[in-house]
Amino acid sequence: IYRRPHTTRIPFNVAGIYPPIATPFTENEQVDYGKLQANLLHYREIPFRGFVVQGSNGEYAYLTKEERVEVVRRVREVVPKEKLIMAGSGCESTQATIQMTLEMAKSGADAVLVVTPSYYKGKMTSSALVHHYIKVADHSPVPVVLYSVPANTGLDLPVDAIITLSQHPNIVGLKDSGGDITRIGLIIHKTKQSGFQILAGSAGFLLAGYSVGAVGGVCALANVLGAQVCELERLCINNHWQEAQELQHRLIEPNTAVTRKFGIPGLKQAMEWFGFHGGFCRSPLLPLTEQEINELRNVFTNNGWL
Amino acid sequence: IYRRPHTTRIPFNVAGIYPPIATPFTENEQVDYGKLQANLLHYREIPFRGFVVQGSNGEYAYLTKEERVEVVRRVREVVPKEKLIMAGSGCESTQATIQMTLEMAKSGADAVLVVTPSYYKGKMTSSALVHHYIKVADHSPVPVVLYSVPANTGLDLPVDAIITLSQHPNIVGLKDSGGDITRIGLIIHKTKQSGFQILAGSAGFLLAGYSVGAVGGVCALANVLGAQVCELERLCINNHWQEAQELQHRLIEPNTAVTRKFGIPGLKQAMEWFGFHGGFCRSPLLPLTEQEINELRNVFTNNGWL
Amino acid sequence: IYRRPHTTRIPFNVAGIYPPIATPFTENEQVDYGKLQANLLHYREIPFRGFVVQGSNGEYAYLTKEERVEVVRRVREVVPKEKLIMAGSGCESTQATIQMTLEMAKSGADAVLVVTPSYYKGKMTSSALVHHYIKVADHSPVPVVLYSVPANTGLDLPVDAIITLSQHPNIVGLKDSGGDITRIGLIIHKTKQSGFQILAGSAGFLLAGYSVGAVGGVCALANVLGAQVCELERLCINNHWQEAQELQHRLIEPNTAVTRKFGIPGLKQAMEWFGFHGGFCRSPLLPLTEQEINELRNVFTNNGWL
Amino acid sequence: IYRRPHTTRIPFNVAGIYPPIATPFTENEQVDYGKLQANLLHYREIPFRGFVVQGSNGEYAYLTKEERVEVVRRVREVVPKEKLIMAGSGCESTQATIQMTLEMAKSGADAVLVVTPSYYKGKMTSSALVHHYIKVADHSPVPVVLYSVPANTGLDLPVDAIITLSQHPNIVGLKDSGGDITRIGLIIHKTKQSGFQILAGSAGFLLAGYSVGAVGGVCALANVLGAQVCELERLCINNHWQEAQELQHRLIEPNTAVTRKFGIPGLKQAMEWFGFHGGFCRSPLLPLTEQEINELRNVFTNNGWL
Repeated sequence: IYRRPHTTRIPFNVAGIYPPIATPFTENEQVDYGKLQANLLHYREIPFRGFVVQGSNGEYAYLTKEERVEVVRRVREVVPKEKLIMAGSGCESTQATIQMTLEMAKSGADAVLVVTPSYYKGKMTSSALVHHYIKVADHSPVPVVLYSVPANTGLDLPVDAIITLSQHPNIVGLKDSGGDITRIGLIIHKTKQSGFQILAGSAGFLLAGYSVGAVGGVCALANVLGAQVCELERLCINNHWQEAQELQHRLIEPNTAVTRKFGIPGLKQAMEWFGFHGGFCRSPLLPLTEQEINELRNVFTNNGWL
Repeated sequence: IYRRPHTTRIPFNVAGIYPPIATPFTENEQVDYGKLQANLLHYREIPFRGFVVQGSNGEYAYLTKEERVEVVRRVREVVPKEKLIMAGSGCESTQATIQMTLEMAKSGADAVLVVTPSYYKGKMTSSALVHHYIKVADHSPVPVVLYSVPANTGLDLPVDAIITLSQHPNIVGLKDSGGDITRIGLIIHKTKQSGFQILAGSAGFLLAGYSVGAVGGVCALANVLGAQVCELERLCINNHWQEAQELQHRLIEPNTAVTRKFGIPGLKQAMEWFGFHGGFCRSPLLPLTEQEINELRNVFTNNGWL
Repeated sequence: IYRRPHTTRIPFNVAGIYPPIATPFTENEQVDYGKLQANLLHYREIPFRGFVVQGSNGEYAYLTKEERVEVVRRVREVVPKEKLIMAGSGCESTQATIQMTLEMAKSGADAVLVVTPSYYKGKMTSSALVHHYIKVADHSPVPVVLYSVPANTGLDLPVDAIITLSQHPNIVGLKDSGGDITRIGLIIHKTKQSGFQILAGSAGFLLAGYSVGAVGGVCALANVLGAQVCELERLCINNHWQEAQELQHRLIEPNTAVTRKFGIPGLKQAMEWFGFHGGFCRSPLLPLTEQEINELRNVFTNNGWL
Repeated sequence: IYRRPHTTRIPFNVAGIYPPIATPFTENEQVDYGKLQANLLHYREIPFRGFVVQGSNGEYAYLTKEERVEVVRRVREVVPKEKLIMAGSGCESTQATIQMTLEMAKSGADAVLVVTPSYYKGKMTSSALVHHYIKVADHSPVPVVLYSVPANTGLDLPVDAIITLSQHPNIVGLKDSGGDITRIGLIIHKTKQSGFQILAGSAGFLLAGYSVGAVGGVCALANVLGAQVCELERLCINNHWQEAQELQHRLIEPNTAVTRKFGIPGLKQAMEWFGFHGGFCRSPLLPLTEQEINELRNVFTNNGWL
């Protein structure tokens, strides 16, 4: 396959904590740009490395092409230059992904996060995925971060594909949301020489991720407990493993609650309790029932966060 | 939830065989409308009930919004009025699905086929899916056919949701591509009174589908062996079970080859051998390797079709 | 591998309906041989082809080696010679399976049903399973029926292994409990010349099984509604497909209830309502709760059986 | 349910590294007690905490009842009193498990490791599993360690069941072989007060296990690279995380090779290269092909172990 003649990897360090920011909607399901920007101003106090815009938690799958670009533009407006904006530009087809990547870079994204295409999962072999990502990376004006999220896509980006792709100068890292720590360790081991970087895709295994060599995390929970997730990062990188362990333990249940258990409606509900604007979800996502809200609240209470 | 006051189900019979037509692309991945229309003219001889446009085999996931509508329009141009056009209008969000449904109806679709939204599969509960489909059906000017295809979506539309939805006057049937024949039998049993109709989503279990009460099929293989699939239909509805069985047996391997095993690239390759235009696929789908082409050809040869 | 020089397949016809009989236990979990034999006397009126002793529903996994043999002996005592006894002799190791096969044949089994070994499922490749079954079949004094039950074993006997094994003169058929009707049709197609026979492993897809060429069924539900399952057989083999369909529909929910949904405790409970002795289960199987009993009963009532 | 009046947990510390020892067989598949004992003498130099006899890697599923007990007896003969013998006593039925537990304790086991019963997995609810383990623990003269190994059983012992069981005074810990590090962290968090201990079930996630609070590991790879696995333990408990990470990285591929990839035949082959007696496997496990042996060897060579 054709590749632009890159000679060296663009030096680009993605280490740190990122919330994959939620997209608040109004009651009639329009993007609420005011609340979106308000949240970002609110996040200023927190030592995030940057923001993931349109990770899975941003309901990107429910945004139109135009909205996806506009959301990035509005985020860039209020986020200072020194914070990275990593924009989710993945689409099912390669050409749509390239198009979206170009537009997001133009709108201010510092890097793009490209989810595996997955609808025809039976044919998304290592070979097909390698071709896809190389074409995208060849055309992208900004660094590319791979994104594997099997809970949503039903597809785990294969380790051999990741190893191959880690050698592309414009592919700088991987967000792994699968949480298989043995696999994550192996990927880090096999891509060490190329400076490839791994971000844990969830606060649930952030400590374990650091223990095997991850350099940060993209954590839904950071939308709610951002300072605490950053504190966990600090403890890990300063080798305070005992305190890190205690903090990690108290984050697991809240994390599961705002991801696997109650999903984005749970995440948005919890954001409201901590002073952020969750807003409404787009249909077909349903709001939580009262019983679910109580259960969710208990999880935060029982772990000492509310 | 709000529902338009329908008093009775729109009488709408979907019984029969439909190819979920492939979308040929040119070498540089543009929709090849010429080849698309040529295929349809070619299919005139075959007693199809109609055509599914933008089922999974139409690579709908790789088309832009504009292309999706344009493909329906072009198909309608060459397909006679008495043949049904069932257009796949499913999107991830409810509002995008409604929008697409309206546009496809305007472009000549007689019915829409609505795949389950699936990206946030953990939250696509029966309740969420029922809400989604009711909103779509309430707004759709044409009848709605549900579409469950777990091999692509990782999600099986739950039986209880189907039973509830079967009572909506504008939801007329289900295309079930999962192939669990016990489940299909149960759905037919539980929706009998409402005149709800089931279409087998594959030629692999078409005979078994008829045996438990399905009224037809949407079969990828009908793009290639359309006359034979229609002959199987004829044998089933005329109670020639012995001959039907023999024909069914010879269709299983070719069917698996152009679906699960070699996917759309295999389907398109086989179309070429039988006088149709498969054309190229859009990336990230890769063309078959030479070895795969040989294997595919052997499957058709060994079952007496080439 | 070594194989006894068989020249021709032993002519052995397994066509027909078999209940995989339950093993009643006393309150303190001893095999209740009295109730076991009473059930068999009771089944005399029903035109079963024979009985499967120690299929999954016989709780064979909970019986000691000695009990497994003794149960076969006691069943043989009361079952007339013209009824086939097919005894489940599968164990995890090949040598234990051969040993058990020899003892069951000596105790009166007319054939053995050999479940796939499955504990080390990662290494139970086609090749390993073919070796296993050939050794067992070479040593077995009675015909061998393969048994694939993925719901319990987490393993589906691969089609290529079945095709290879179908050529062994002492392997006469397959009980397929997976219920993938496309797969069943393919197996029948590919083993046609060797006289290999397929039994549907559940009443849920019995009609569909017949439609693609199965010759009978081993159906848990036949422990409860034996006459009705045999009536479904009669309708299918006499080409009364419309009546067959209606009967099949009414059997699906009761079948699911006594298998996947409520398991053996459900099966045993339902047996009591129809005049048979279900008896207790062995621990760790728990008896149904009152609510589960009510739900189970409703399933039989709603389908007109109680 | 009835429970013996225990007032306090038996103080019992399982922390440390254990190889789940392989069972060497002779060419004609008899247990080779000589080789078994020779391996144990060989392991004397390595600072293991003890030995797991008849974990999954001991091919316990292929041993007769008598062999299972005899293997424990022979191991005890050559293992010094200060090393723990943890014997796998799990069977499918509760009564067989209790019986086996009693015999293994009599034969010198210091604790028993009880795998989840799993054949009727659809009915192995939390409730059923809690009942099972409580009965076993009530009757066991030695401490009980729970054992969850979904790769073999298709069943993950649910977290809520583990929390309940952690309060039983005779249930002291869990060997978790699933490797979901978020789940492991959660279990440790929720059972902290009761002194319950977690052992990582594989060397692949041993470091990550320690990072979240596990106290040791039962690692197939320790049969081959025992000293290295113990060195990893030492680095972790002494907070040398950087060196631990480097060592962990080099152990992942060899670990995968002797477990998921090549299974017990791979483990036994690798043992031979490192001076231990792997011996033959029992059928249906097949020996590795020459190509597999080469692949396996490369894994050890590439990571600097051969």
